[in-house]
Amino acid sequence: MNIAIVGLGLMGGSLAYALRGFRNGKIIGYDLRPDVTARALDSGAIDIAADSAANAVSQAELCLFCADPAGILQSVEECTAAAAFKPNAVVSEICGVKSEMVQKLPAMLPKGARYIGMHPMAGKEVGGFGNAEAKIFRGAGFILVPPESYDANALELLRELALYVGAGRVIVNTPEEHDEIIAYSSDMQHIAATALVADYPEKLTLAHTAGAFRDCTRIANIDADLWTELLMGNRGPILPWLDTYIRNLTAVRDALLTQDEGALQSFLSKAGQHKRRIQSS
Amino acid sequence: MNIAIVGLGLMGGSLAYALRGFRNGKIIGYDLRPDVTARALDSGAIDIAADSAANAVSQAELCLFCADPAGILQSVEECTAAAAFKPNAVVSEICGVKSEMVQKLPAMLPKGARYIGMHPMAGKEVGGFGNAEAKIFRGAGFILVPPESYDANALELLRELALYVGAGRVIVNTPEEHDEIIAYSSDMQHIAATALVADYPEKLTLAHTAGAFRDCTRIANIDADLWTELLMGNRGPILPWLDTYIRNLTAVRDALLTQDEGALQSFLSKAGQHKRRIQSS
Repeated sequence: MNIAIVGLGLMGGSLAYALRGFRNGKIIGYDLRPDVTARALDSGAIDIAADSAANAVSQAELCLFCADPAGILQSVEECTAAAAFKPNAVVSEICGVKSEMVQKLPAMLPKGARYIGMHPMAGKEVGGFGNAEAKIFRGAGFILVPPESYDANALELLRELALYVGAGRVIVNTPEEHDEIIAYSSDMQHIAATALVADYPEKLTLAHTAGAFRDCTRIANIDADLWTELLMGNRGPILPWLDTYIRNLTAVRDALLTQDEGALQSFLSKAGQHKRRIQSS
Repeated sequence: MNIAIVGLGLMGGSLAYALRGFRNGKIIGYDLRPDVTARALDSGAIDIAADSAANAVSQAELCLFCADPAGILQSVEECTAAAAFKPNAVVSEICGVKSEMVQKLPAMLPKGARYIGMHPMAGKEVGGFGNAEAKIFRGAGFILVPPESYDANALELLRELALYVGAGRVIVNTPEEHDEIIAYSSDMQHIAATALVADYPEKLTLAHTAGAFRDCTRIANIDADLWTELLMGNRGPILPWLDTYIRNLTAVRDALLTQDEGALQSFLSKAGQHKRRIQSS
């Protein structure tokens, strides 16, 4: 079973490395930037360099689209237009927003192609093929998102793929469940972190920062274009969580303003309990 | 030069381990809990176990008070009442809020005692002697906070101490500068992290979380009593930063609500620049 990977950035590149040997297939890679495709071939991440998305998927039984949402849809459209998909090809993509993707992508595929969305809960605050590594999936969560009607064998193939790359927990969600939870577990974290560094004290130096600052703002070193697209794409589920966050912060503000120690203590105490409960879930 | 450490929790215990051999002195330790003092002696963190704060400081030229703010002031008061401080003893404490401490503590000391506040920018989200380790100070920031009138030799001694435990950057701030910057670099991070877990999706599992969630909420596993005291103690400088944070989050909310991609992109872009600028400062 050959695998086409369209898009060799952090995720596509990491999947290429991690999928080496999966079902004894070859890995065919394509990136919009020819120098990236060449580098992936040189470094052994891929076995075959393709010169177009269509050329890549025409050689593969499993096609993984690894780009931003708009890029994924455009590549799929090109491949269908070129009649490049093999009959019964299994098609997946790594987009972090699923409702729209699951609505649009399957309708673009030729009859017989079997689509299942996936979302590896792995990444780095820095992107690009140069940062790709097989190990980012090790022990990570991995969400599979089938459309309403799907092929059970395709779902099992992607579950096998998730375990092969080292995922620690594999879960199946509907697109709506996925987007609702990710709005909190990923999108809101990025909003909270970036808002923390929108303003900062003039006299701040690294001598004043410790693990708290480093960890809370690590992901503030963000790819602004990618995340504008992701946050706008999931704005429906994000907005209620953002309102909830602002409401909770306002409660802390009010407790500080009125010196209500009891309210502050019970807020912090509840947060500690929640964090420990989530960690052990 | 012998060193008294009053309070053998995470910070006092870690300082005890890290100060081994400093100026060839002995380390005399005391904790309110006799079992903790005994454990510190057994584990070699301290050379001599004292049975009271006064007993500890009566044997030392350098006295480090390592407790919560109220506990520090109470211990210092006891030591002064017992006439326990040696003439010209250098006295310090590790409290994370300095304006009030620098106002109150020196006035409690006998004439001749030389006070300099310190704030090692090191810690863990878990406390207690059992989590103490010498290495938490390695490469960390270390803030020295002298009162308006202070002894230059005492300041140099504490700078030497900071470098001895491995601090990477040592900075001297006024109490007001310290509290203003820490309100942002520590207090606000703890507020942001705890507010993130005040509410969370019912269906959230570890499969849905990755590095973003793990890092942004690591410190939400908080000591609620200690942080109620710290946040209330620094509420003046915290409140404007908290208002700024809420204002920035509201700007993101408005950009999402009105689908203003340009505003969101420039917000994220600015955040990324700030984060990279702070990292290289």
